[in-house]
Amino acid sequence: MFQEYDVIVVGAGHAGCEAAAAAATMGSSVLLITMNMHTIAQMSCNPAMGGVAKGQIVREIDALGGQSGIVSDKTMIQFRMLNLSKGPAMWSPRCQSDRVLFAQEWRTILENNPNVDFWQDTAKGIIVEDGKACGVTTSLGIEIRSKAVVLTNGTFLNGLIHIGEKNFGGGRTGEKSATGITEQLVFLGFESGRMKTGTPPRVDGRSLDYSKMEEQPGDEVPGKFSYSDTKPLAKQRSCWITYTNNEVHELLRTGFEKSPMFSGRIKGLGPRYCPSVEDKINRFADKDRHQIFVEPEGWDTVEVYVNGFSTSLPEDVQYAALRKIPGFENAKMFRPGYAIEYDYFPPTQLKSTLETHLISNLFFAGQINGTTGYEEAACQGLMAGINAHRNVHELDPFILKRSEAYIGVLIDDLINKGTEEPYRMFTSRAEYRTLLRQDNADIRLTEKGHHIGLASEDRLANVLRKKSEVAEITQLLATTKISPDEINSALEEIGTATLREKTSISQLLKRPQLSLVQLIDASSQVASLLENFAQDSVQQAEINIKYDSYIEKEMLLVDKMNKLENLTIIDNFNYDVVTSLSYEGREKLKRTRPGTIGQASRISGVSPSDISVLMLFIGR
Amino acid sequence: MFQEYDVIVVGAGHAGCEAAAAAATMGSSVLLITMNMHTIAQMSCNPAMGGVAKGQIVREIDALGGQSGIVSDKTMIQFRMLNLSKGPAMWSPRCQSDRVLFAQEWRTILENNPNVDFWQDTAKGIIVEDGKACGVTTSLGIEIRSKAVVLTNGTFLNGLIHIGEKNFGGGRTGEKSATGITEQLVFLGFESGRMKTGTPPRVDGRSLDYSKMEEQPGDEVPGKFSYSDTKPLAKQRSCWITYTNNEVHELLRTGFEKSPMFSGRIKGLGPRYCPSVEDKINRFADKDRHQIFVEPEGWDTVEVYVNGFSTSLPEDVQYAALRKIPGFENAKMFRPGYAIEYDYFPPTQLKSTLETHLISNLFFAGQINGTTGYEEAACQGLMAGINAHRNVHELDPFILKRSEAYIGVLIDDLINKGTEEPYRMFTSRAEYRTLLRQDNADIRLTEKGHHIGLASEDRLANVLRKKSEVAEITQLLATTKISPDEINSALEEIGTATLREKTSISQLLKRPQLSLVQLIDASSQVASLLENFAQDSVQQAEINIKYDSYIEKEMLLVDKMNKLENLTIIDNFNYDVVTSLSYEGREKLKRTRPGTIGQASRISGVSPSDISVLMLFIGR
Ligand SMILES: Cc1cc2nc3c(=O)[nH]c(=O)nc-3n(C[C@H](O)[C@H](O)[C@H](O)COP(=O)(O)OP(=O)(O)OC[C@H]3O[C@@H](n4cnc5c(N)ncnc54)[C@H](O)[C@@H]3O)c2cc1C
Ligand SMILES: Cc1cc2nc3c(=O)[nH]c(=O)nc-3n(C[C@H](O)[C@H](O)[C@H](O)COP(=O)(O)OP(=O)(O)OC[C@H]3O[C@@H](n4cnc5c(N)ncnc54)[C@H](O)[C@@H]3O)c2cc1C
Repeated sequence: MFQEYDVIVVGAGHAGCEAAAAAATMGSSVLLITMNMHTIAQMSCNPAMGGVAKGQIVREIDALGGQSGIVSDKTMIQFRMLNLSKGPAMWSPRCQSDRVLFAQEWRTILENNPNVDFWQDTAKGIIVEDGKACGVTTSLGIEIRSKAVVLTNGTFLNGLIHIGEKNFGGGRTGEKSATGITEQLVFLGFESGRMKTGTPPRVDGRSLDYSKMEEQPGDEVPGKFSYSDTKPLAKQRSCWITYTNNEVHELLRTGFEKSPMFSGRIKGLGPRYCPSVEDKINRFADKDRHQIFVEPEGWDTVEVYVNGFSTSLPEDVQYAALRKIPGFENAKMFRPGYAIEYDYFPPTQLKSTLETHLISNLFFAGQINGTTGYEEAACQGLMAGINAHRNVHELDPFILKRSEAYIGVLIDDLINKGTEEPYRMFTSRAEYRTLLRQDNADIRLTEKGHHIGLASEDRLANVLRKKSEVAEITQLLATTKISPDEINSALEEIGTATLREKTSISQLLKRPQLSLVQLIDASSQVASLLENFAQDSVQQAEINIKYDSYIEKEMLLVDKMNKLENLTIIDNFNYDVVTSLSYEGREKLKRTRPGTIGQASRISGVSPSDISVLMLFIGR
Repeated sequence: MFQEYDVIVVGAGHAGCEAAAAAATMGSSVLLITMNMHTIAQMSCNPAMGGVAKGQIVREIDALGGQSGIVSDKTMIQFRMLNLSKGPAMWSPRCQSDRVLFAQEWRTILENNPNVDFWQDTAKGIIVEDGKACGVTTSLGIEIRSKAVVLTNGTFLNGLIHIGEKNFGGGRTGEKSATGITEQLVFLGFESGRMKTGTPPRVDGRSLDYSKMEEQPGDEVPGKFSYSDTKPLAKQRSCWITYTNNEVHELLRTGFEKSPMFSGRIKGLGPRYCPSVEDKINRFADKDRHQIFVEPEGWDTVEVYVNGFSTSLPEDVQYAALRKIPGFENAKMFRPGYAIEYDYFPPTQLKSTLETHLISNLFFAGQINGTTGYEEAACQGLMAGINAHRNVHELDPFILKRSEAYIGVLIDDLINKGTEEPYRMFTSRAEYRTLLRQDNADIRLTEKGHHIGLASEDRLANVLRKKSEVAEITQLLATTKISPDEINSALEEIGTATLREKTSISQLLKRPQLSLVQLIDASSQVASLLENFAQDSVQQAEINIKYDSYIEKEMLLVDKMNKLENLTIIDNFNYDVVTSLSYEGREKLKRTRPGTIGQASRISGVSPSDISVLMLFIGR
């Protein structure tokens, strides 16, 4: 009934959609199997993309030729660049999305890809022959064959939903859970674990009193995610901010007895950095308020997402507490918050390509690897899709280094350190975060994306244009000198030291108080120098000049680390023959099987002396 | 946690949405409880509204102030007026819908109604006190109180999905079934039964060869459903026609052994007039082909609905057979067809208001009453919503007669005759079908709809304008005479007898060969006479004149029947004291409890002599 596909992708969440789109765009024949074609790319939780560190990931996905940035741009209702008051390493794009349009746009993109076929069904198992994945079996009892399989089951594997003392099976509220896959994989030797995540209640926007909240409008000049020619928003919807208070906390505490988390009914570990509201008031008992973001779910709908109020307390407790929040006095709920427990597979069982060590041509991506968040899922899907395609076509693996992308950091962390609690990205996880900025993801990655057949010619042309412009601008700013006459009055006004002699614009720009925009405003010489360049190039050059020394420092670190990364460890390396390894070090190395000495150095339990021993051994 | 509502509506399918919108528009506070807020107004089967007899129902819903016509107009991708070659009683509007937009538009309408609240949950039982419904309990264990409850559970009650030899619980593919309600109602004394329906596979439009099919474009001048100011389509998408053949039939037969229907695994009766393809080739073994309509599911999607190929045979048999249909040689399936069995409640347990006899303020509407089809469901929802509102506010029941609307026919049939197989509407079910046309639903019903507070002032003004124009036009056409000079050459050309003397336009119009458009074209006198009238009024007057004698005949019948309908039978009438009733007649009357002698006369098993006996008794 089915042809043999190059790649089967199981699940059409954020990971699955990127995986399918990537493999298909590069030329693989792809079958996307998902339980319900009406829920393709559904946002399970908040209607938003990006944010700190996550926004950088979306830009990286886009730079490589993935789709999440484009989908976000086309369906957002508000855009904000977060952290503009901090250094550019921290600038992070974030948008509110229209939940329905987001899903629809993804479906349209997939349907327009001639290499993507669809099948609505539940995968129940993997067909494994000679240690290789070669297809899946489904709940209809069908066998579908392929050369590679990408699993992106999200929160669906043995999903169990909790609200207060009640619990029932489900992959998301109102949807069935998926069984069979965990059981088979465990039988095949995989280790599985249990995690949990939660979501807040949804309320009726018509029942809220916004006059008691602070408005949070979008940026005055809204930006966007994609480096392609998507359009920025012409109009936007506002979000609103309000706060919990002690009364809210007291009411929530009345439900603690029945809380599935505090009672121990939930076994899985939840995301520490995205805690439920009961967690927050429990752990930070001295804080007398927590921020609540009131976010619309789309352009036209009255449904509102109560960000910051994720909870699995009994629904009557949720309701009573909610109504004590300023603006929520008459709030009506559409549905209560809930927690969900699900199976994941500790990601130390994966290679840097997201292929499993145990079974070749089997890839895992997304929440199934113990991560949380759409962006984290999407970028894994992209990388798994790329590598599944490359495996099938006998091409080299495509791996991003920690110094090249947040995506590289994420995968390197997962496969080497594993994760005990749902893993989400933070800027602090990246040691080279001045390099990994949202503004330069295209310069970092688009040529690579194009090289593997994913990023389009247009994108490549665009980035080459930008690179050469940045070089030209940098050169111009370094060599063009500005005279005291021309600029001093402006400098005085800004409150920074005046010039005594002609100084290069670069030199001036290094002052923290000065921006290029100010110089352009102040000096017609600077203005005319730059007037023919694209804005993104000018901004890029400015950042490069201003953060020059940081960037250089990080580059040195990168060089040092790359030396370690270049020392590869063969796939079946026998650690038992390296007798001087510590016991713990050897066990961890055998379990994680790092691909390089660099990776080995990041495994917890592997000591610096273990690394020296290994380097000596491999150097031989 | 919840206020006491006037009306709780369980289920947000076509019945539930109309019920909620109607009760809320008239002023009731309404809570709409549904399992999944993402599936509000989902079209479970074909993406189309209207059709023969069903299109009339949509126009009636619209005329009363319901929403299905407006939603259809705003979201259709093609419009056709069916049966234009037959008499105007048979003209039936039909549209293809964009499945996603249809659901979205309904949700927007409901959200914009300030009296509709939403709650996502599964109703598990009815709260009954003193024989009255006063709320529901849900799967979260919540009690929500109300003055009336409308159940519109569709195919979800103990839904069981079949494909070949496999079956699994579900209310629709990918969705959970609902349990608890049937069990409770049976415990309370209701009778329940089992029915089944089916749906065809969905295929990938990109894999079809349309050059082997006949194109079926929309009407050149597309019409619409609503009498309100919705806009007709400016562009349309085509459907396509192809045929099965003996090869297809042979392949399908290879699956009969594993068919859940032929093997007896499916107990419920399916819709005889909307049979599965295996049913068709089984029952009409001599027919060597059946028509297949190839229908797009929306403006942008590549998903295609294979109308006419509903099946629950094993999916590989579906697939193999499908590929033998011209144009489907390379067809790819998105998902297989399936059959679903579900609980229904024989509708003889209902009053004309759709309230149950057993429990007051409890209403049933839609597929739960043994009907099939969106339109049938929607109109029941509307009537149940209206009557729930009126019950709660102690107003008279709102009942439509068989002579007033297809809706009246449908409900009268259901409650008096019941139904053994899924009931769908046909023009042949209406004895007064010349009266119940799609063009005059507004004239028949809008004043009534306005009177009860449902149809808007605008609608009323519109229909009053139309009525007075029609009267004026009719008068003008009857009194204005046309001379042989003016018209004879045209009559000759058309091939109908020429005039000898001045004749009224009405007189001429009665000739079957002549239409008003022709007369307008031929005679500037007729043209100028009518130029200032709206088109719908002119058409209406023409139909009235042309079908005058039929209409009159039916009106006489109506009068006769109304006499019987006016003889009401009190609610607790004791049939045991009417000793001369036949045994079967008495049992049927006791079970069905008709509200009038007219209704009694339509109960199968109640003989004309039983009716005479009853009339005598009641006449006393
Ligand atoms: C209740 C809830 C709360 C959350 N809260 C947060 C939060 O606060 N912050 C945050 O960052 N993230 C949160 N998330 C996580 C976020 O939704 C996920 O990280 C992200 O959606 C993961 O994407 P994915 O592609 O891995 O999986 P999903 O988006 O879950 O998609 C999985 C897909 O696979 C399909 N599928 C599963 N099993 C099968 C099978 N066997 N056969 C066929 N198809 C299958 C499903 O139908 C679905 O389409 C939450 C998720 C849930 C459910
Ligand atoms: C597979 C299939 C094939 C069909 N084929 C045809 C066909 O060929 N021709 C035709 O004319 N019609 C067909 N139909 C029927 C058509 O879909 C229905 O007649 C119509 O949708 C009925 O409308 P409804 O409002 O009664 O119920 P539905 O549209 O089924 O809606 C029921 C609603 O109630 C909700 N619900 C159910 N139980 C609960 C509960 N306990 N608590 C809360 N919410 C609940 C559901 O989530 C859903 O929103 C088919 C239906 C199905 C499922």
